[in-house]
Amino acid sequence: AAHGARKMEDYGRFLALLAATLLVGFVSVILSLVWVFHYREGLSWDGSPGEFNWHPVLIITGFVFIQGIAIIVYRLPWTWKCSKLLMKFIHAGLNTIAMILAIVSMVAVFDFHNAKNIPNMYSLHSWIGLTAVIFYSLQLFLGFAVFLLPFAPVHLRAALMPIHVYSGLTIFATVIATALMGITEKLIFALKNPAYSASPPEATLVNCLGLLLVIFGSLILWMASRPHWKRPPAESAKILRPIAATAEGTEAESTMTNSSNADKSDLRGNAEAARKQNIKFDEAGQRSTM
Amino acid sequence: AAHGARKMEDYGRFLALLAATLLVGFVSVILSLVWVFHYREGLSWDGSPGEFNWHPVLIITGFVFIQGIAIIVYRLPWTWKCSKLLMKFIHAGLNTIAMILAIVSMVAVFDFHNAKNIPNMYSLHSWIGLTAVIFYSLQLFLGFAVFLLPFAPVHLRAALMPIHVYSGLTIFATVIATALMGITEKLIFALKNPAYSASPPEATLVNCLGLLLVIFGSLILWMASRPHWKRPPAESAKILRPIAATAEGTEAESTMTNSSNADKSDLRGNAEAARKQNIKFDEAGQRSTM
Repeated sequence: AAHGARKMEDYGRFLALLAATLLVGFVSVILSLVWVFHYREGLSWDGSPGEFNWHPVLIITGFVFIQGIAIIVYRLPWTWKCSKLLMKFIHAGLNTIAMILAIVSMVAVFDFHNAKNIPNMYSLHSWIGLTAVIFYSLQLFLGFAVFLLPFAPVHLRAALMPIHVYSGLTIFATVIATALMGITEKLIFALKNPAYSASPPEATLVNCLGLLLVIFGSLILWMASRPHWKRPPAESAKILRPIAATAEGTEAESTMTNSSNADKSDLRGNAEAARKQNIKFDEAGQRSTM
Repeated sequence: AAHGARKMEDYGRFLALLAATLLVGFVSVILSLVWVFHYREGLSWDGSPGEFNWHPVLIITGFVFIQGIAIIVYRLPWTWKCSKLLMKFIHAGLNTIAMILAIVSMVAVFDFHNAKNIPNMYSLHSWIGLTAVIFYSLQLFLGFAVFLLPFAPVHLRAALMPIHVYSGLTIFATVIATALMGITEKLIFALKNPAYSASPPEATLVNCLGLLLVIFGSLILWMASRPHWKRPPAESAKILRPIAATAEGTEAESTMTNSSNADKSDLRGNAEAARKQNIKFDEAGQRSTM
């Protein structure tokens, strides 16, 4: 009973953090719209500054908020009864939406620059931003090929999962860093009279937006890196029932990919070894993302 | 023998990554000096731009490079024969040096701004940078009080260690993001004829410096988050020998703090329980930082 009470308390703590994260992300999207509509030229697609304005709005909505949700989607306790395959589709789907929005937001900037004869790709923001989009696309493509398509062998999935998790979190952090550089650039260029250094209301609003992005990123990284908030390896129960084991072949693989213990994957050749391994993981309570 | 060969291969991989990380960090420091001496006004302490220039040099040397080394200092295999206490002093010492350099580098900017009547603390860079320094100092103070001083009880250390690790890595990532914003600001303000957008050699050099900072941070985060590169819990061997167990009381605590399994710490009341736990950790190979 005491164990159950502690589990409920932990569940409540997760929900509270999730609510805070969603709120911070939601307010960030709202602030980007307030920035663009109240202080700037709104949204359009005609080579004017209104076209540029799609850039911050789509990056914050797609590349920060939606990517953040995609990262923690396996952690939502009410999805643990859904199949792992369905959750993989949701994870990949959200990341695909985020990638498309990021690419559209880049097209908006190039289009605007070309219309106004402003050079492209000269700033550190553009260098790191483009690198992040390329790595993000690569990560999505490799994740799809290795973890969603049914062709990759178990040991490959096990070996690549820690790299997938690390790359995902590092790209996410880099995207937020790039957004902060973008905010810095835009405030310096756009605020002239009064200047950024005179702290007009727009500067204060957008600085707060930047702070919220850092808080959002920190909350996502916290939730994604708590081992006890991971989706439980339901597969271990299934492998224990030998009849179900053969039917759930694809699912059983996620037992490996769930663990960061890739180095030992080659030691487990059969269901019996996997079963022992699962019990060990459960006892040690050490399933960890990073 | 096959196991030993794999261990050596893994050791070689760690050394190669460490060498790459040190090289990237070292080149970053050199590039900051080239920037300041070849393209800018050099270093001085007289309210001139030469005083401002201490800011990027000290941030990159102290708050990025030295902080990065402090983070992975427990991972260096040749330190595993040293006592955990000595390593804690080195970890705390390097972080103290980094903090002092970060504070001096901030004083340089405030001094320069005041001499030139430039407002302080208006930019997102300054907001997030000051927040990072405050959290870094707090982290250092709490880490010293909880993990170095011998007063904190074992369960408190166990409960705070995952938070300490998460905060440390998040602050480190935030510091690099802040450095990228600082580079962006400085290049926009300093490059006028030709402007930043005309990509003069200085812009290319400092963009490369920014890229190197991202690579340095990514390498440190990778090394810090591989569970199999953690300092082994030598304490488990000691606890197995009951005579040594009492003499090594303080060291035994790090068995808890080594694991991310803080939730279960209250279940282990005695050396026997700790011994079982150690064996489980060793078997599962799942000791993880995050």
